[in-house]
Amino acid sequence: MQNTQVILARRPVGVPQPEHFDITRTPVPDPAEGEVLIRITHWSVDPAQRGWANNVPNYSPPVALGDPMRAFAVGDVLASRHAGYAEGDVVEGLFGWQTHACLSGDAIARKVTETDLPRSYALGILGLNGTTAYFGLRETCAARAGDTVVVSTAAGAVGSAVGQIARLMGCRTVGIAGGPEKTALCTQAFGYDAAIDYKAQDVGAALADACPDGVDCYFDNTCGPISDAVMGHLAQGARITICGTAAITEWDPIPSGPRVHRQLLVARARMQGFLIFDYRDRLAEARAALADWLRAGQITTREHILKGPEAAPGAISMLYRGENTGKLLIAV
Amino acid sequence: MQNTQVILARRPVGVPQPEHFDITRTPVPDPAEGEVLIRITHWSVDPAQRGWANNVPNYSPPVALGDPMRAFAVGDVLASRHAGYAEGDVVEGLFGWQTHACLSGDAIARKVTETDLPRSYALGILGLNGTTAYFGLRETCAARAGDTVVVSTAAGAVGSAVGQIARLMGCRTVGIAGGPEKTALCTQAFGYDAAIDYKAQDVGAALADACPDGVDCYFDNTCGPISDAVMGHLAQGARITICGTAAITEWDPIPSGPRVHRQLLVARARMQGFLIFDYRDRLAEARAALADWLRAGQITTREHILKGPEAAPGAISMLYRGENTGKLLIAV
Repeated sequence: MQNTQVILARRPVGVPQPEHFDITRTPVPDPAEGEVLIRITHWSVDPAQRGWANNVPNYSPPVALGDPMRAFAVGDVLASRHAGYAEGDVVEGLFGWQTHACLSGDAIARKVTETDLPRSYALGILGLNGTTAYFGLRETCAARAGDTVVVSTAAGAVGSAVGQIARLMGCRTVGIAGGPEKTALCTQAFGYDAAIDYKAQDVGAALADACPDGVDCYFDNTCGPISDAVMGHLAQGARITICGTAAITEWDPIPSGPRVHRQLLVARARMQGFLIFDYRDRLAEARAALADWLRAGQITTREHILKGPEAAPGAISMLYRGENTGKLLIAV
Repeated sequence: MQNTQVILARRPVGVPQPEHFDITRTPVPDPAEGEVLIRITHWSVDPAQRGWANNVPNYSPPVALGDPMRAFAVGDVLASRHAGYAEGDVVEGLFGWQTHACLSGDAIARKVTETDLPRSYALGILGLNGTTAYFGLRETCAARAGDTVVVSTAAGAVGSAVGQIARLMGCRTVGIAGGPEKTALCTQAFGYDAAIDYKAQDVGAALADACPDGVDCYFDNTCGPISDAVMGHLAQGARITICGTAAITEWDPIPSGPRVHRQLLVARARMQGFLIFDYRDRLAEARAALADWLRAGQITTREHILKGPEAAPGAISMLYRGENTGKLLIAV
């Protein structure tokens, strides 16, 4: 049995491109005591992979050259020598871009129990994306009913969940996305009260129209000019969650932009970095709420599923170009 | 009886200079029913006056041309037709740069009750400066025992209070100030564990030495290159209070600087604007604590007192040039 791996072969600077990866095959080992052998079925493609592939300070060490690209994945247990898992279990974790993972059962993130929902949801709306939206909005943004909540990459895997959860919480929601298709998704599929097309509109002027009382919460997935525009419309006591910086392709050296200090001071606003790993002990709470909303049809999610390992090397750059139309996954 | 006023005669752009003010005299009116006539003895000089004098969005409306410059002041009640005040009371409030104020008793901030301490303290360590330090450090920075607390303008009226309160709370304190006299004040008068001279040292390298475990709290009075350097040394979960932006002389248009988003994200740090007016209902708590610490000799304060109304027009620019050696006041 062969394990097909997409390995990080060359170190990128900035967004990983196809040439930074090689596809290789190695034999699948037998699980040792305490280990579990998994046949992976879905690989996740996430903005965080850009940081993992680069050799720059980050919240995780960089992926070593020659290793399978670090990635969230879901699969079936083929064989288990760990008491917590049995053959046939569906499991999720940081298994990497490979078709088979043989690893300590302790390294598995969890057994996927929402078997009435598509298992790929474990990588998106019930995984990193949905739980990030849930805690980033409720905790870091501290959203409350009546707040005006602005979301960048509003039709994306995280942003679409933020907008829908905020709506369920009684907030007014304004999505910022690129192009008419994505803004149409915002208002038609994800229930935003208003959507702004940053490619076609003056974002500042559009925000003034859409947020006459200012922005109470900004869930920031982009940084860059979109976020600069939002800073000019903060309500008193605004809360900003810095969740991602998709609009900035290179942080070394740190790029310049308008200083935020005075706007934070005048509005007594708060800007805070968010990382879902800090909520690892509370993920079940978010997943349970999200699964219930999905089952009740109160929220929806979109997936964009590529086919086969050969789709992986170009997938991260595709994500950064904004070409995906839903949570980006690879079925293998 | 004549009222000598320092009026805002011309609208500054940036830091107000002597030519923006005129000194005029008008008769002192008699207090009407509900009013109090005050003979002012001390005028405060504060960084916030720069914002009040300029015609730009701020947390207070700009001072109208021809009006006395807005300023905190302290004085004696000469006559009162308000039940809350009597002749001989010492009172403090936003009385402006004038020798006499005749205003509604309801507009007086408070009766100064710490009569065993110099009345001028009501404008500094027991006023805007000390209470700003107290709440900005304890609430917005959420300082805890064991934290490493970095303070910019560390020998200034706010900064020196921040450093001393933090030390009393069990924090390690690092002050950043300009020049050997101010850094000597930091360690010798205000008890900082370390002081960095931003005019003579590489602030980033000095921070690496002084804060080997990173910066847990940064009380930011400057913005600009000093703050940019601190951003490179944030500990996980760092909290930054944006209290002032003394290093930036002009905010229209907003100047550029290194984008802070990635550093906030990687450290899951928080940056928050602070304005003491939001704590108006809790000022007594801070004043009581500060007065007790002063009486017990646990904290100290320095004042730099100019003499006479003619010192006022140049005082704000003197403050922004950093030429004062303590809380800047004018005795009139």
